[in-house]
Amino acid sequence: MDERREMDRSQPVPPVSERVHAVAEALSEPLSWQLLPDGKTVREAQLPSRRRVIDCVEELRGVLFPGYFGYREFGRQTITHHVGAALERVSQVLALEIAHATGYTAGQDYGRDYADPRDVARIVDEFIAQLPRIRRLLTLDCRACYEWDPAAFIPEAPIFCYPNMLAMMNFRLAHELYIRRVPFIPRIITEHAHNITGIDIHPGATIGESFFIDHGTGVVIGQTAIVGDRVRLYQGVTLGAIRFPLDQQTERPIKGQPRHPIIEDDVVIFAESTVLGRITVGQGSIIGANVFLAKSVPPQSKVFAPPVRVGQLSKRERDESVAGG
Amino acid sequence: MDERREMDRSQPVPPVSERVHAVAEALSEPLSWQLLPDGKTVREAQLPSRRRVIDCVEELRGVLFPGYFGYREFGRQTITHHVGAALERVSQVLALEIAHATGYTAGQDYGRDYADPRDVARIVDEFIAQLPRIRRLLTLDCRACYEWDPAAFIPEAPIFCYPNMLAMMNFRLAHELYIRRVPFIPRIITEHAHNITGIDIHPGATIGESFFIDHGTGVVIGQTAIVGDRVRLYQGVTLGAIRFPLDQQTERPIKGQPRHPIIEDDVVIFAESTVLGRITVGQGSIIGANVFLAKSVPPQSKVFAPPVRVGQLSKRERDESVAGG
Amino acid sequence: MDERREMDRSQPVPPVSERVHAVAEALSEPLSWQLLPDGKTVREAQLPSRRRVIDCVEELRGVLFPGYFGYREFGRQTITHHVGAALERVSQVLALEIAHATGYTAGQDYGRDYADPRDVARIVDEFIAQLPRIRRLLTLDCRACYEWDPAAFIPEAPIFCYPNMLAMMNFRLAHELYIRRVPFIPRIITEHAHNITGIDIHPGATIGESFFIDHGTGVVIGQTAIVGDRVRLYQGVTLGAIRFPLDQQTERPIKGQPRHPIIEDDVVIFAESTVLGRITVGQGSIIGANVFLAKSVPPQSKVFAPPVRVGQLSKRERDESVAGG
Repeated sequence: MDERREMDRSQPVPPVSERVHAVAEALSEPLSWQLLPDGKTVREAQLPSRRRVIDCVEELRGVLFPGYFGYREFGRQTITHHVGAALERVSQVLALEIAHATGYTAGQDYGRDYADPRDVARIVDEFIAQLPRIRRLLTLDCRACYEWDPAAFIPEAPIFCYPNMLAMMNFRLAHELYIRRVPFIPRIITEHAHNITGIDIHPGATIGESFFIDHGTGVVIGQTAIVGDRVRLYQGVTLGAIRFPLDQQTERPIKGQPRHPIIEDDVVIFAESTVLGRITVGQGSIIGANVFLAKSVPPQSKVFAPPVRVGQLSKRERDESVAGG
Repeated sequence: MDERREMDRSQPVPPVSERVHAVAEALSEPLSWQLLPDGKTVREAQLPSRRRVIDCVEELRGVLFPGYFGYREFGRQTITHHVGAALERVSQVLALEIAHATGYTAGQDYGRDYADPRDVARIVDEFIAQLPRIRRLLTLDCRACYEWDPAAFIPEAPIFCYPNMLAMMNFRLAHELYIRRVPFIPRIITEHAHNITGIDIHPGATIGESFFIDHGTGVVIGQTAIVGDRVRLYQGVTLGAIRFPLDQQTERPIKGQPRHPIIEDDVVIFAESTVLGRITVGQGSIIGANVFLAKSVPPQSKVFAPPVRVGQLSKRERDESVAGG
Repeated sequence: MDERREMDRSQPVPPVSERVHAVAEALSEPLSWQLLPDGKTVREAQLPSRRRVIDCVEELRGVLFPGYFGYREFGRQTITHHVGAALERVSQVLALEIAHATGYTAGQDYGRDYADPRDVARIVDEFIAQLPRIRRLLTLDCRACYEWDPAAFIPEAPIFCYPNMLAMMNFRLAHELYIRRVPFIPRIITEHAHNITGIDIHPGATIGESFFIDHGTGVVIGQTAIVGDRVRLYQGVTLGAIRFPLDQQTERPIKGQPRHPIIEDDVVIFAESTVLGRITVGQGSIIGANVFLAKSVPPQSKVFAPPVRVGQLSKRERDESVAGG
């Protein structure tokens, strides 16, 4: 690779404008078109727009919790106007983006049965109808956050100040689209929360009530994980997969198999612990920090990392540089 | 839950506009109003705006380090004009948002004594007066970053290129508002840095001079942690709490108790280590990577993770799929 | 520190406008000017603009993968127009920012040989010429992502929905500028990806083909790390440094020495593992989750964390509060 670069330099360099044209031609052609479904061009099979999907989610925050997000200058009588207007905008944009997404996958064989473009209106309608239930769930998440964080003094502050609430808003909205088999968009929504909070919850995961993730950076919850009620996770906790059967033909993992943990009610998992495989962590168990767990444990278990080694630094060690960048 | 969804689908779907109206009514009413302090509406008790608070912080970066952030087209003689104008804008917006925040908590019993809305002018004035001292501290943090990162060749580059500098700017600004008992806003400021950098420092933490966090994603420093001078942390390090007394009545943790570690001067803590509880890590100690530590260690200690198990993959293992998504 | 604050409060507070002026004067003067190269002012030695550099990278996404990012309303015949126009804009802005960056370091002794401002046109031209090769590499990364993530059903979805693809786009672009010795800008580009994805890859790292990082938050890959082909990393994995020789004079680490791991082809490293020092992880090895590894292992090794301690919670422990915030 480095050799080729050296050769590049030894050749005369064409003017930039000529180079730009040649590269633009090269980039217009092969790969990205090949990636599209057979026989379609990008224009015919337009992908959903990340930007518009994210705008919908941002507007939905103000719909779910008016006064905490978005427009703040309303009174008790006019709030319905603002919520209603926002909801209508969201419905329209979301319908358009779901139409793009389902139109893109329609008639393709991706190994998963995606929604039909003719069902867009029904999907949006069902999604809107779930919003009051989603808000109730989020309010329970917020209460769990207040009750379990000794640094939280104002019960409603988590709604707009805490990363887990943002992650759960996006997850609970995305999940409703995921179970209705909308392609792309659920993942865009949870990945948006992942970008902001470092909390990566797959939209397919099943998560109970009063769920609390503290701090949250590095948390991963996989597609087929099942989490009970009143579960608490700390930063860096993974509910992941460890091994799964290979497809005999492709020698690659088979898609979508159950492969993530089942976490029963009232479990606490401390920072940086990794729980892998289709195992069960029994009700009320406590998993300590920095634990690697890959087998089931019964209810009321405690699991801790093995003891560390503690000693005194020698003079040589004190003088030596030790760093880790 | 899934059953109910199936039932939903079997019923006739009303037109979207009707559904939107019904949902808007439902969302306007119960929960978010209940969450507000007694007898107030959102309009009367307006929350501070995250957007405006963050805009202030962004503008303050250019005030603290002109030329590195914000407007770049000034000369040595005109710099004061730009810094002064920015500072005046920040003062005004910040005063307004602090007025919202303190107005919201005024007269409410949150179990913590928040600042009085009548003190807004004094708080802003004191805050502005601290900026030169904050810049001196940040410059020491920047120097520590340059000295301890073997990949840093340009001493001033960390100011605008390194995540720890962004996190420390937000933390040191937020801390000045926190100790003056401003509600919401300190947390919004540190959470903004958390969003960008993955470094989650509670605005209440006490942090000494020449502090260096390398890479930083996943670092958590709790509300009552005390960190000495010349301390270095790597990515994924937690200074957290492990257990705290429950309130007898609510059966929930008592708020605000000292519960995080004390890290003395010249300590280094390597990647992904979790230090929990009101323990003391003695001066000059080195905590290795992936360590779980929950008891005090004397000065000049070394603490390492227990040895790993190393073996050879069998043929079966090599053929088997092993993954972890 | 707290004492001085108390004293501040006991003194009469001057009006805000007066305070703003005094602080603006203080901030205009000493530190940020001192940090600049000798004898220059900010205007003379203008730093590159983070904002503009990031805008270039965002526009390059649409150039590399038209239809997936940026403008979507083109047909197969007009795509070259849009790609070409975007590429010309990027070339011009990038040339300007590289001119700022190299102008800033020109004639300064930073201990690293940075590019000469007279070479800007050549650097931009070479960079543009690499774009088709970069896209080929990214397409292989995308395919690895699809093949190894059992939750990925649509082969092309990772391009615009997965964090590792964003991180690899930024890394592979930044690396081309890094090896041409452009200051500041490569780091700005990789740090931008770090901000969004939590994946921190130094632009100097050497990374092979078909590289897959799943989830990614907390991944750190150091400046001198060497990663082979078909390597997979999970969230929280560090390829870092552990110790390096000190400069005798400054007592600080010598810059730029090889100090990060060599990861051979087909290695898998699970979540939250930390691999430190100039060691070699042999071809085809599997490193389990939560492992701390600081010595070389031969090909086909398996390395696992030591066993955890599992027990039953006592009645007292069940009643006691245990938390970790």
